Amino acid sequence: MSRNIYLESTPLQEALSAWSGRLRSEGLLHPLEGEKIPVADSLGRVTAEAVMAVISSPFYHSSAMDGYAVRFYDTFGASERSPKRLRKGEQAVYVDTGDPLPDGFNAVIMIEDVNIIKDRHPEGTGEHSIEIISSATPWQHIRVIGEDIVATELILPENQRIRPVDLGAILAGGHTGVTVRKRPMVVIIPTGTEIVEPGTALRKGDIIESNSRVLGGMVTEWGGEYVRYRIVPDDLEALKGAILDAHSLGDVIVVNAGASAGSEDYTARAIQELGEVILHGVSMKPGKPVILGLVKGKPVLGIPGYPVSAFLTLRLFARPLVYSLQGLEMPGPESLRVRLSRRVASPLGHEEFLRVKVGKVGDTFIATPVSRGAGVLMSLVRADGIARIPAQSEGLGAGTEIDIELLRSAREIENTIVCIGSHDNALDLLANIIRKRYPALSLSSAHVGSLGGLTALKRGEAHMAGTHLLDEETGEYNIPFIKRLFPDTKVVLMNLVYREQGLLVPKGNPKNIRGFEDLTRRDVTFVNRQTGAGTRLLTDKYLKDLGINQADVRGYEREEYTHMGVASAVLTGVADTGLAILASAVALSLDFIPVAKERYDIAIPDRFFQTDMIRKLIGIIREDAELKDMVAAMGGYDLSDMGKILYEG
Amino acid sequence: MSRNIYLESTPLQEALSAWSGRLRSEGLLHPLEGEKIPVADSLGRVTAEAVMAVISSPFYHSSAMDGYAVRFYDTFGASERSPKRLRKGEQAVYVDTGDPLPDGFNAVIMIEDVNIIKDRHPEGTGEHSIEIISSATPWQHIRVIGEDIVATELILPENQRIRPVDLGAILAGGHTGVTVRKRPMVVIIPTGTEIVEPGTALRKGDIIESNSRVLGGMVTEWGGEYVRYRIVPDDLEALKGAILDAHSLGDVIVVNAGASAGSEDYTARAIQELGEVILHGVSMKPGKPVILGLVKGKPVLGIPGYPVSAFLTLRLFARPLVYSLQGLEMPGPESLRVRLSRRVASPLGHEEFLRVKVGKVGDTFIATPVSRGAGVLMSLVRADGIARIPAQSEGLGAGTEIDIELLRSAREIENTIVCIGSHDNALDLLANIIRKRYPALSLSSAHVGSLGGLTALKRGEAHMAGTHLLDEETGEYNIPFIKRLFPDTKVVLMNLVYREQGLLVPKGNPKNIRGFEDLTRRDVTFVNRQTGAGTRLLTDKYLKDLGINQADVRGYEREEYTHMGVASAVLTGVADTGLAILASAVALSLDFIPVAKERYDIAIPDRFFQTDMIRKLIGIIREDAELKDMVAAMGGYDLSDMGKILYEG
Repeated sequence: MSRNIYLESTPLQEALSAWSGRLRSEGLLHPLEGEKIPVADSLGRVTAEAVMAVISSPFYHSSAMDGYAVRFYDTFGASERSPKRLRKGEQAVYVDTGDPLPDGFNAVIMIEDVNIIKDRHPEGTGEHSIEIISSATPWQHIRVIGEDIVATELILPENQRIRPVDLGAILAGGHTGVTVRKRPMVVIIPTGTEIVEPGTALRKGDIIESNSRVLGGMVTEWGGEYVRYRIVPDDLEALKGAILDAHSLGDVIVVNAGASAGSEDYTARAIQELGEVILHGVSMKPGKPVILGLVKGKPVLGIPGYPVSAFLTLRLFARPLVYSLQGLEMPGPESLRVRLSRRVASPLGHEEFLRVKVGKVGDTFIATPVSRGAGVLMSLVRADGIARIPAQSEGLGAGTEIDIELLRSAREIENTIVCIGSHDNALDLLANIIRKRYPALSLSSAHVGSLGGLTALKRGEAHMAGTHLLDEETGEYNIPFIKRLFPDTKVVLMNLVYREQGLLVPKGNPKNIRGFEDLTRRDVTFVNRQTGAGTRLLTDKYLKDLGINQADVRGYEREEYTHMGVASAVLTGVADTGLAILASAVALSLDFIPVAKERYDIAIPDRFFQTDMIRKLIGIIREDAELKDMVAAMGGYDLSDMGKILYEG
Repeated sequence: MSRNIYLESTPLQEALSAWSGRLRSEGLLHPLEGEKIPVADSLGRVTAEAVMAVISSPFYHSSAMDGYAVRFYDTFGASERSPKRLRKGEQAVYVDTGDPLPDGFNAVIMIEDVNIIKDRHPEGTGEHSIEIISSATPWQHIRVIGEDIVATELILPENQRIRPVDLGAILAGGHTGVTVRKRPMVVIIPTGTEIVEPGTALRKGDIIESNSRVLGGMVTEWGGEYVRYRIVPDDLEALKGAILDAHSLGDVIVVNAGASAGSEDYTARAIQELGEVILHGVSMKPGKPVILGLVKGKPVLGIPGYPVSAFLTLRLFARPLVYSLQGLEMPGPESLRVRLSRRVASPLGHEEFLRVKVGKVGDTFIATPVSRGAGVLMSLVRADGIARIPAQSEGLGAGTEIDIELLRSAREIENTIVCIGSHDNALDLLANIIRKRYPALSLSSAHVGSLGGLTALKRGEAHMAGTHLLDEETGEYNIPFIKRLFPDTKVVLMNLVYREQGLLVPKGNPKNIRGFEDLTRRDVTFVNRQTGAGTRLLTDKYLKDLGINQADVRGYEREEYTHMGVASAVLTGVADTGLAILASAVALSLDFIPVAKERYDIAIPDRFFQTDMIRKLIGIIREDAELKDMVAAMGGYDLSDMGKILYEG
């Protein structure tokens, strides 16, 4: 069990230039050679040499109209007052659009400008004539040879990605094949004894191998292709064998993971023994333990195992390479100026890549950080963009304007309803239904508790807030809080659902918990909700009513941010009980001790209430039968006032 | 030979709403059903139902660090002054990142914070202890169950295009398959007796079938798939048979072409006899003869044969359908505000789709219309965007600001050097080499003649102009013109090449042309260059010197815009001779009667001369050996002053 706990911590920019400088000096950024493929298969590929026309298009003079081909000097003198007749077959030949011009003819008269005359001459052959009332100009209505493409002309330069219209031009220019760059081949080697194939019956300790498909998908989007090797266990020789095998197949080799410095992390050693580790460890967060190396003239990357680290490091260190190998300029980042909704602290000395949700509220794009864990892939799935916090910064204050790199388009963001506040599972179902009914629209919800939601609404950071705040004095839900927080702003309060709150306990209630009074027991650990959550207020009210001191509740200080978080803590034994909605107990098959029926409303400032997005949302809340059925099926919901306006002012 | 020369001329917006209204009422815009496919194959596909997690990730508590799992209450009281020892195996268990937490343990201490102590007790088992200097908090450095994904959580909503990170989340959520929308299947039926497969030995009258790959490529880019049928001849029954056959395979059927009303245009009749023609003929340009129909509940489009018409009509009438069938919102157009460089006249009553080249010159995006022919596919290949001129407009004045729909990104446009002026084949080679050396850069050249180029430069519409204007009085090239046109602006004049101009004649010189004096012969037809072209000035100078009256030259009024255009006219018999550079004769194997050696220079306003783009271009002109070799190989070029500054002021 040898272990090197000291990784380097090379600054990111330095690491990027060391890597690209080294790859350049080794000739590894040079575009790959070309391969000739059928034009029909070349969409999206990149030309490896200039495409010149070998024939002209059209390659013969052809009629540009339906009409009659004529010799223009036969038409001289025709006018309305003295029409001219031309004998068909001899002086005028019918041509459809695209027909070749008969030899010796040099103009076309449109069918619309011609009278067809039955020849009534007694010795007539039955042939017709045509009558025209104006003369033709030379070469009128004729597509001359080369009108579109002239032989030898440059159709496409080298290093151009082939679009649909290009396919047509290459074919029309006389080619059936086209020389395109080979696609950069990236071999992805998943490694780790704990890693299992998706679909395996899982045992504790197993990790489903999912990174390779993320990494492979990224390579595919950049224009490369990938092969995924079978999972290699934590075994130095096996890993070296796989890298050597990949060497003949790939232009780039990616090992995931074993990139850290743990006792079973063999990637750096394998690369070192086969070739050279250029650097190991970059001062970025997430993604620190990345390894950049070379094995016999091929780039080898050791990519960390946490999914967010894997995504970020491949993007930084492999993407420029995949573009260079295609002879393409890497597309620049799509960026957007946003305002941070809250303060973000960040460690000095590491460049942090912060995932943010963005909403356009009024005229401002507001960014809210999502989970920062390197292991939280859903933070990337849900993110709209990435903010970079420089290594020399200790963080950013709330309200700071920054540029973020977009992961979704600004247009999608503009079509997103931002809901901040208390979480309810019905919101997830609503998010799905709105996308189903209106593919352009999204509902994004961030869970900061009821009070946090109303505060965000007041700060203009959201379109709506989900809230279930019980006013201790009046016993009324939400309205007193809105009156207090929005003295000058008109806000509409609409009911979403009534729902049951209760104590969750494991199946069978092994500790025989019957109510809040049991929370003071020495053998009972509670899990709480965060300050500002409606459920937290409910907890505090019950403790107060029962005269229980918060300090006497074990686990009172452990906070979860969602009902499902509480349910998950109970299911997994982190806690014995916690207060949450019935639906979360049903979802995880927990037992449920009812405590209260509460009102869950949505608060919407009037200025948003009239927007098209919100009107569509309300239409769904009020009328969508599928939504109602799905919410009801979760259990514990009363939908009788769904969509009803409870307060305006 | 029956012919209906009267198409309808439905206004475009009316046609679009009639079409989508009818499709909607027939239920044909409803998303297609789903199909379950392996997650690994689902990149870019669209979810047909919500994806919910079936397991949590992680599904067991695991260590977030390399270190020791402990029970947090065993660590109470540890401090620097009174370190605490924990027995390995019993009180502390080594875990790597990702390892499951042993049962009963509830915190992890990082390896960096631990001292490993060799147990020196005489009866010691050889086991070690660890020493810690601070206590652990509950659940520190532990990834709890569901930290990333909680079972039952919504991973992706319905109607979402699957990105690389989504693949990872679906797999980590416990799925191996995912239900995605079937791809909309578009069957493309090329039809026309004159149409031949690419690669066929060509005979006069043949047209290479290239549209189907353009149309199919477009469908592919929109997320659909396509099948291309073999070419169907102009035969009503054969066409009906193909449509019926396609009916069982496709969601959408596209017939190309036979869409017009010519004697052999059967598409409208075939659709009418099998089903219904909803409308035939839309007042747009190009693209008028489009047919929109239904056959037994499937949309059938008759798409015109000219490539630009085919592109535009498929885009307008099939694209919304392909997106709807996927349950996706159609992406909005990327648009850009541009200034028109010249006046554009447009017919009243037709909405015109004008292809434009765009260049960023200084701070302004300048759009210049390219060829307007429906048959000129290269106008689309070269275009940066499409301007729409409304039906009720007779055109747009020079300098008008309009919004165009982009075909290339604004970034690519910003990295394009705009060269307007005289054409020389060396510019095509230069365009290719610059793209090869700097994939981000492009050189776009528009050919309006030397004088047109200098005028465009003066108006700020280009970065540089190619020019070879001979001043009759001084016998000097270019400099007198620049002095006259740019009295107040500093312009740099740099030589590109010296080149030979001469009369092109067919191989073997069948009419025995020996010089300009032969242009007055009755049996000789000349082809001229446009007014403002340097070559036109050269022609006029020679005619004047020889005392020849322009009216005595047959064909003097027929103008081509490029050397290759002149060469093509001579090759194909449109003319017997014309003045052009040697390279164009070499390219088309014509004979060449030398007339003059002339200087071809590039004029660059000083404010652009110092830009990075232009410096790279000049570097290539001066130093690139491959470029020099290729230019020399064309024949007739003297490269001795290539890149030399001839004038500044």
